Amino acid sequence: MGIRYGIIGSGAIGCFYGAKLIQAGCDVHFLFHSDFEHVKKNGLRVDSIDGNMFFPHVNAYDRATDMPTCDVVLIALKSTQNHILPNLLSSVVGPSTTIVLLQNGLGGERLIAHQTHAKHILGGLCLVCCNKLGPGHITPLEYGKILLAEYREDEQPAGVSQSMHDIAAPFKQTGISVDLSEDLILARWKKLMWNIPFNGTCALLDTPTDMTMRCPQSRELAFELMQEVQTGAASQGRAIPDAYLQEMITFTDTMVSYMPSMMLDSRHHRPMEVESIYGEPVRTALNNGAHLIRTETLYRQLTLLNARLCHTAPFDQYIIQ
Amino acid sequence: MGIRYGIIGSGAIGCFYGAKLIQAGCDVHFLFHSDFEHVKKNGLRVDSIDGNMFFPHVNAYDRATDMPTCDVVLIALKSTQNHILPNLLSSVVGPSTTIVLLQNGLGGERLIAHQTHAKHILGGLCLVCCNKLGPGHITPLEYGKILLAEYREDEQPAGVSQSMHDIAAPFKQTGISVDLSEDLILARWKKLMWNIPFNGTCALLDTPTDMTMRCPQSRELAFELMQEVQTGAASQGRAIPDAYLQEMITFTDTMVSYMPSMMLDSRHHRPMEVESIYGEPVRTALNNGAHLIRTETLYRQLTLLNARLCHTAPFDQYIIQ
Repeated sequence: MGIRYGIIGSGAIGCFYGAKLIQAGCDVHFLFHSDFEHVKKNGLRVDSIDGNMFFPHVNAYDRATDMPTCDVVLIALKSTQNHILPNLLSSVVGPSTTIVLLQNGLGGERLIAHQTHAKHILGGLCLVCCNKLGPGHITPLEYGKILLAEYREDEQPAGVSQSMHDIAAPFKQTGISVDLSEDLILARWKKLMWNIPFNGTCALLDTPTDMTMRCPQSRELAFELMQEVQTGAASQGRAIPDAYLQEMITFTDTMVSYMPSMMLDSRHHRPMEVESIYGEPVRTALNNGAHLIRTETLYRQLTLLNARLCHTAPFDQYIIQ
Repeated sequence: MGIRYGIIGSGAIGCFYGAKLIQAGCDVHFLFHSDFEHVKKNGLRVDSIDGNMFFPHVNAYDRATDMPTCDVVLIALKSTQNHILPNLLSSVVGPSTTIVLLQNGLGGERLIAHQTHAKHILGGLCLVCCNKLGPGHITPLEYGKILLAEYREDEQPAGVSQSMHDIAAPFKQTGISVDLSEDLILARWKKLMWNIPFNGTCALLDTPTDMTMRCPQSRELAFELMQEVQTGAASQGRAIPDAYLQEMITFTDTMVSYMPSMMLDSRHHRPMEVESIYGEPVRTALNNGAHLIRTETLYRQLTLLNARLCHTAPFDQYIIQ
């Protein structure tokens, strides 16, 4: 028997990568929530840009405790659900398990390290735009490029290990581009370089990226927020060159009009990932002596917006010092 | 013949104070825009908390050039209309005219000083919650307290002049409380101490004041914005004591759930007073060496919101250095 994979959180991202792993011949076990009955009965469909996939029978579970212990566990929950992870991971993670956290923002790997005894914890940064068309029916808009980097408790660069190559292999086999990075913290701040300026601004103002970039004032704010992300990265000893900021501006200018995930969440009154994308970076930088004032302002505004739209408790578990 | 008054901008505020002046026996001339025909035909109604007023015939104009030169001109336009003031004031303002600018925010008096040859320019800060019920039909929610202070080109305190007492007299006669302040700039920053934290935040998030105060993160943001206003005032040499900030917090905590004017504007897709309440204070402080970063962040966001809701040009006439 080959490597056994567990997929925790089978939304668009979880289903897409899980389907790719089945395609690569792996033994894959999915934890479903609302789509469980549908997938049990009708199977899993993933319409991909390089061919459609249909699996009439998948190993689907609706209770985490029914799942077997897995060699590799992909966590594809939204970070707003991280408080339920200890329950979801208790039987699926063993002492030789590698966890790959497919989430946005900062701090998720540390949380998991404190909650489990996994052997390796990797961060997986997805550069895929994926949509759920209906229950068990996913279409990815792009090719699903992924970047992997390993977590270390001292938050220093972990280098590229054999285990990272092993995780990457079946994805590469099905045509997914996988980059291996030596430094998880740097990779996460570089992803935030786009998420912090655009996710929150577009959600707060309900404007897609192109309109945000066309207004000189919000364009300037986006650039100032990028500079704060650069400062935040520097506070953790990670240098992001000025050229990278310019690259992000040019990238966004040349994109089609795009609604970031947080804007879609706010439109559909779904909880936004405010803590992982804003709260945690602000606190991390502050603990390292850097006050990201604009990012903190967005954090405070988005907390109120989340409370209003989703009736989440406006009381956060953390307090800004 | 007594003193002749001109009312430029006959919305809720202009009609309310104009009606009070008629009640005091003054000669009042109103410039109307959309309500002109209605008022000509049906007269002006003001339902006041201390008695309703109805004037079947008022001196109503629909063209500023038809109006006589006035001794006192009350400007009650929204500051978003200030670019049309030179045309509106050309015949109504003479060399002995006193102008009273009933507007929110900073910088309006200086603009008028550069555009006219009025003898005196006063700022009028209205502490009235006024609503328009229909054409020519206004109801004030409170007693219409007003604070007057005189503009000086060097922006130093002008003291309390006889002309200020003269302006105050007819209002006082009809039961309106009028405070006379020695220092226009201080008075304007003190009013901004409430407007900057609450107008923009409530408009951006579409939440009334009580919800904004109940969420710990936005409550903290409101206080931080007040501290920035305190810094802005200090940059112009005006000290606002910490106790005043606490007073504004307590005042807002004990208010009924309230929707600031800017929030109502955004809900009705009317232009918001972003430049006078945010842009001008940010620029003024910056010119005096203080960078109000959170206020500037709101300014940038509100400029985009204005552009999206009202199709205003997102290109401002000023550039932040």
